[in-house]
Amino acid sequence: MTALFPPERGAGRGQDRPKIALDLIGIGTGNPDHVTLAAIRAMAEADLILLPRKGTDKSDLADLRRQICAVHLGDLSRVEEFDLPVRDASGAYLDGVNDWHDAIALSWKARIDACLPQGGRVALLVWGDPSLYDSSLRIAARLGLTPRVVPGVTSLSVLTAAHAIPLNDLGAPVVITTGRRLRDAGWPDGADAVAVMLDQGGAFNALAPEGVTIWWGAYLGMPHETLIAGPLPDVAQRILDTRAALRAQHGWIMDIYLLRR
Amino acid sequence: MTALFPPERGAGRGQDRPKIALDLIGIGTGNPDHVTLAAIRAMAEADLILLPRKGTDKSDLADLRRQICAVHLGDLSRVEEFDLPVRDASGAYLDGVNDWHDAIALSWKARIDACLPQGGRVALLVWGDPSLYDSSLRIAARLGLTPRVVPGVTSLSVLTAAHAIPLNDLGAPVVITTGRRLRDAGWPDGADAVAVMLDQGGAFNALAPEGVTIWWGAYLGMPHETLIAGPLPDVAQRILDTRAALRAQHGWIMDIYLLRR
Repeated sequence: MTALFPPERGAGRGQDRPKIALDLIGIGTGNPDHVTLAAIRAMAEADLILLPRKGTDKSDLADLRRQICAVHLGDLSRVEEFDLPVRDASGAYLDGVNDWHDAIALSWKARIDACLPQGGRVALLVWGDPSLYDSSLRIAARLGLTPRVVPGVTSLSVLTAAHAIPLNDLGAPVVITTGRRLRDAGWPDGADAVAVMLDQGGAFNALAPEGVTIWWGAYLGMPHETLIAGPLPDVAQRILDTRAALRAQHGWIMDIYLLRR
Repeated sequence: MTALFPPERGAGRGQDRPKIALDLIGIGTGNPDHVTLAAIRAMAEADLILLPRKGTDKSDLADLRRQICAVHLGDLSRVEEFDLPVRDASGAYLDGVNDWHDAIALSWKARIDACLPQGGRVALLVWGDPSLYDSSLRIAARLGLTPRVVPGVTSLSVLTAAHAIPLNDLGAPVVITTGRRLRDAGWPDGADAVAVMLDQGGAFNALAPEGVTIWWGAYLGMPHETLIAGPLPDVAQRILDTRAALRAQHGWIMDIYLLRR
């Protein structure tokens, strides 16, 4: 996919294009108080803030983004919604994700063209921090834009804060990985501590549970934040049951965990 | 080392002790705008904020903590300094660090006893986030206190934001490790991306540099933030030279980097 916004100072190309600046703003994981002063400032500087359209099963999250905008902007006049395409989960995982990012880039571009025909500063609000298991930087690259990134508090920091534990042992490394990878590759070689994100549920069941401790959290930073910790053999089933019940209750769930052995 | 503040509701023990609550507040890495609203609120709620005494070679950092307090509290009347003991680097690394943490716990306790004889809420301001290569949680445990942790923006998020890059490849794991560990153990097995913290300088020279890209940053978030990125064989010497010059100029340096191959 070629860049959707060609370089403005290219040799004779695109010189009459409207100039678009893009901010990716990390906003933490759901607690409006986890927003930084830099994030509030960047939101105030934006000519247009794009939010994914409500109507998905994560409508709580769309509401929360709007609430953060309302609190910090005073009004929602510069907030617009874009359609979040649906990911095709039928084929190979990475192919499906790459196609999905192409489609999201087109959706961003359609809204930017419609709302900022003269150019301006566009902002997207990213859960957690834009560097960690988030696609916005890759989507921005498809638009030919190098964003200004405003760092945010990660869900890992919120998890460890909620449990009042360090991420790493003294001087020791930490592996951050995905549920998919944990399921496929098992416990990472040489790791004492493993943080797992993007688990669709129960990837820890692929491990030998003896000697492993888990610190689990769902809806981190939100009013319905839920925490469970303990030896994995003792709490694994309780986590799975709690996760299923919460997902049924709220219609969606986001959870992460730290494992140590 | 036994807990310095015995449990308040123990069976007949310590019931007349003043009640001490402890907050560990992540404040980001030097940019006062990276402070969260939750951090500002926690600072305002504290009866006592303990800062390490100036006079070390990192006096810029002590000044910056005081500046953050002055901006967000209006005055410094609740801010007190404690003496930061010197770590004995002569023996085994972990022994030296553990002894040092014992000594810091005693130093915290002396100031808390002196300033809050009737009990109250004590806060410490932690660079970055209290979960990541920070000792405050371990020192708090020596005091028998379970702190409230306010998560902060990590230096890793500030590094990746400054370079506008993701930490992880799509769906891939990340290893966070120390310079010491990288030097001793080499490239972590199975890792594509490795973030290195607490390097005393040039641990990446222990690696075969071919095919490795580095994104390096020093004084992240601060006015004299310095960034270098590129293929490791091309920029390794420039990073070492820049690091030495900056350290000589400022009297101290804090830097981290991300490696990818």
